Amino acid sequence: MSHVFDETIAVSPIGPQSFAARTRPAYNNMVGPFGGATAATVVNALQQHPQAQGAPLALTINYLAPVAEGEWTVTTQPLRTNRTNQHWAFTAEQNDSLVASGTAVFGLVRDTWHDTEARPPVAGEPGEHPESDFPDFIAWAKNYEKRFVSGSLDFADPKPSDDSTTTQWIRDAPARPLDYPAITAIADSFYPRVFLRRGVYLPAGTISLTVYYHATPDELAEHGDDYLLGTARSARFGHGHFDHYGQLWSRGGTLLATTHQLAYFKDPA
Amino acid sequence: MSHVFDETIAVSPIGPQSFAARTRPAYNNMVGPFGGATAATVVNALQQHPQAQGAPLALTINYLAPVAEGEWTVTTQPLRTNRTNQHWAFTAEQNDSLVASGTAVFGLVRDTWHDTEARPPVAGEPGEHPESDFPDFIAWAKNYEKRFVSGSLDFADPKPSDDSTTTQWIRDAPARPLDYPAITAIADSFYPRVFLRRGVYLPAGTISLTVYYHATPDELAEHGDDYLLGTARSARFGHGHFDHYGQLWSRGGTLLATTHQLAYFKDPA
Repeated sequence: MSHVFDETIAVSPIGPQSFAARTRPAYNNMVGPFGGATAATVVNALQQHPQAQGAPLALTINYLAPVAEGEWTVTTQPLRTNRTNQHWAFTAEQNDSLVASGTAVFGLVRDTWHDTEARPPVAGEPGEHPESDFPDFIAWAKNYEKRFVSGSLDFADPKPSDDSTTTQWIRDAPARPLDYPAITAIADSFYPRVFLRRGVYLPAGTISLTVYYHATPDELAEHGDDYLLGTARSARFGHGHFDHYGQLWSRGGTLLATTHQLAYFKDPA
Repeated sequence: MSHVFDETIAVSPIGPQSFAARTRPAYNNMVGPFGGATAATVVNALQQHPQAQGAPLALTINYLAPVAEGEWTVTTQPLRTNRTNQHWAFTAEQNDSLVASGTAVFGLVRDTWHDTEARPPVAGEPGEHPESDFPDFIAWAKNYEKRFVSGSLDFADPKPSDDSTTTQWIRDAPARPLDYPAITAIADSFYPRVFLRRGVYLPAGTISLTVYYHATPDELAEHGDDYLLGTARSARFGHGHFDHYGQLWSRGGTLLATTHQLAYFKDPA
């Protein structure tokens, strides 16, 4: 039986560079689909492109406009294939309007000197932390098992915090082997940091998301359906925007991805 | 008298969406122009576009192929203008080949709740740190006054380090009022972190650079031609790639920009 994530990111070719996609209610956010699912669908389309060479190395997706429930299209453009990497541009359209755009880099795995300099946050084991629920109106979150190590939000009674850091164990629910689309969605799974700082819900959403995929295909295969340890923190809030920088780790200490995003929020001073 | 940086980033419109640019020897890197100057030229072109609304908020530029000395073209594409932000795609071409592509977001300044959660690195004052020279073959670096707080590289006798962090005071030389193109170039001014870790020079270069401009136009004007405090650190090296995440601060503690980049290197294990 296919996972609802696979149904959500499914694409079918409708032209030499175009793929049809369709939102699924299971991955809805408060308004429209979860941006992580949109990004994951783009990654899936790029990986299915017959000219794709290697595996995703970098993705930047900009969210131009709200996506409505229903059909949408991914248009991919292979820009240049070098010896070890490949460059892409893409757009997403719905009802003849652009809803997203971005770029991606794919690469071949080469054997070189290696070191992971960053250290995973101290997090104990996933089972030491209770499973968290998001409110019912955040449908997509039900497809993830989330165990907060720090920076959880009490959705029933949110309180402001001085620290925007969230550290969480997370995996698909039901569990699903990790791949590039799945890690892309998980990179966007941190609820808006401004909720944590302000202790209130505000209109907020990602404008631009960048993911660097440090994990090789072999590392993803080795990861399987185990938990990821995600941590993210904002540097600056103001003028209607905030950033966050995050890392996604395996339980064994493999740094699978780093991610940086810019989001908007509405909150008169 | 115009600053050589202004000459380097100068563009002239050659069509409704296209701008002519030209590399300058003063901003050459080891091979071709300094990528930061290329990115700065794109930002300059976007800001000069008659449809540009507001100021740069986010930039992602992917470097597809080496740029040769000489003429090149920036082609901009305004994708969507919302009430408070505006989305762009762009490409850079030289001799009918794509050499760079990317996306940008511009935004209007809105007054909201604000807080800078990150803290600048402990760095003392610029004058406490000697001015550093890069080797003569790195021409672009002569256009910056660099004062390393930590993570300098002894270019005559490089030694490996366990820590890829570089923290530096930096400004244009001669001094020049800070603007969005200049801060873009400075975001790419950290020499490749793999040099510091390995203590050797390797073929290395940026593949994808993202900059989030937290600074408003007023904050840049207030900054003037003072030093910026930059800090950058890699999380993971391997399979021919590494990332770094960095921050650019004003002397007074304003977080002007955050930046994330993915680079390649060649170094058989």
